[in-house]
Amino acid sequence: MTKAASQKKSSSWNFDKEELFFKRHHLFSDTGKKVLIVYAHQEPRSINGSLKKVAMEELSRQGCTITVSDLYAMDFEPRATKKDVIGAPSNPEFFNYGVEVYEAFKKRSLASDITDEQKKVQEADLVIFQFPLYWFGMPAILKGWMDRVLCQGFAFDIPGFYDSGFLKSKLALLSLTTGGTAEMYTRTGVSGDFRYFLWPLQHGALHFCGFKILAPQISFAPEIASEEERKAMVASWAQRLKTIWEEEPIDCTPPWYFGQ
Amino acid sequence: MTKAASQKKSSSWNFDKEELFFKRHHLFSDTGKKVLIVYAHQEPRSINGSLKKVAMEELSRQGCTITVSDLYAMDFEPRATKKDVIGAPSNPEFFNYGVEVYEAFKKRSLASDITDEQKKVQEADLVIFQFPLYWFGMPAILKGWMDRVLCQGFAFDIPGFYDSGFLKSKLALLSLTTGGTAEMYTRTGVSGDFRYFLWPLQHGALHFCGFKILAPQISFAPEIASEEERKAMVASWAQRLKTIWEEEPIDCTPPWYFGQ
Repeated sequence: MTKAASQKKSSSWNFDKEELFFKRHHLFSDTGKKVLIVYAHQEPRSINGSLKKVAMEELSRQGCTITVSDLYAMDFEPRATKKDVIGAPSNPEFFNYGVEVYEAFKKRSLASDITDEQKKVQEADLVIFQFPLYWFGMPAILKGWMDRVLCQGFAFDIPGFYDSGFLKSKLALLSLTTGGTAEMYTRTGVSGDFRYFLWPLQHGALHFCGFKILAPQISFAPEIASEEERKAMVASWAQRLKTIWEEEPIDCTPPWYFGQ
Repeated sequence: MTKAASQKKSSSWNFDKEELFFKRHHLFSDTGKKVLIVYAHQEPRSINGSLKKVAMEELSRQGCTITVSDLYAMDFEPRATKKDVIGAPSNPEFFNYGVEVYEAFKKRSLASDITDEQKKVQEADLVIFQFPLYWFGMPAILKGWMDRVLCQGFAFDIPGFYDSGFLKSKLALLSLTTGGTAEMYTRTGVSGDFRYFLWPLQHGALHFCGFKILAPQISFAPEIASEEERKAMVASWAQRLKTIWEEEPIDCTPPWYFGQ
């Protein structure tokens, strides 16, 4: 065997070894996990679109099954109305939305756009909410998803909320972009600590339904950032997702949000 | 004059004096104020409906001009989309909602359902938001009103926010009902102090636009209250409104919300 041939063989062997290592590593890290991304942005080429895209890429690479609810593309209905109940209301004299959807859930007479989303949530190990912050909260189209999909009977009951919420085997993570800078969202900044506005979203809604909450992914002020900085925000999210299944949930209680 | 006739006259005179006093008092208390009630409930006979109704009655009695935006009755659109801009977008290649509506506001090419609401806000001295708490926040239909109506150029600019917000001559007040009890919404209760969930709504949205914030009117857990207790909640709101124009706004900063 010539030196060149030997080098080739050796190099080929190394390549195979690397490939095998990659395959083994890939198999080892093939989590079999299911992820639902609830995505609320109008423009696919926005940074929210990019954050959604890299999440899909990274989680696919890990072998996760990914479902996306692209709310604007679906023209998702945010309004909580009588239309959410198929057939006669439980009380035709007095419309109480919470009572009616609870009854409809039990009788399997909820509108199909709600049950479609409930199926996706039911199958998911992790739900990622990807959205731009509107008025310290979710855009109305996403708020409507919370209002309508996470109904009593499906996501919680009384009793059966907070740590006993029906979605307690699942993880939730808010990935959001802000208009204001990180500096504005500090304890002494004009907009206060960013954890303050997370309270209703993470604790009031998601934790109430039992979700374990992973730390939020906040991309601050991408609109006033450079192209390079925006790329770094997207890369940092992709990087974090590589080890997302090893993360411990936050302790979703007032000290996390407001300090002592 | 018989005794009876004398009594009648006297009684009549007293009646006239009372009427005159009422008229004078009425004129004196005729504030000439304008109030917008943004109302988000599906059922007129709900406690939210009653709270809206007594507010209209009491404020009318004071001589206020009242406008109501009954969002469900209007089937108000909560979604922030391209439809909010009439004609060609400022950037047809990349849709940025905030930028597009800011440009449209300046060019007077915003959708008419937005400008109709902006006119009502512009004319109001006080805006009352009447709604049931959904997930520690506003129902999506009302969140959509905030997202779409309070746009850059109309409600604020950069700079021109918080104490310099464009609506700084106006008062805002949240009147809301909860599912949870007052006990749950305390510092040591499962849902935390009620002031925690008010932060994004009062500070993040309304104060950002300059509004001075009056103390919230919270009717806790009407659904598990007795009929008598519900009546007392409504009466207490009507009573408060009698002296609403004498109230001082809250100090809308973190100490009000989170203590020291």
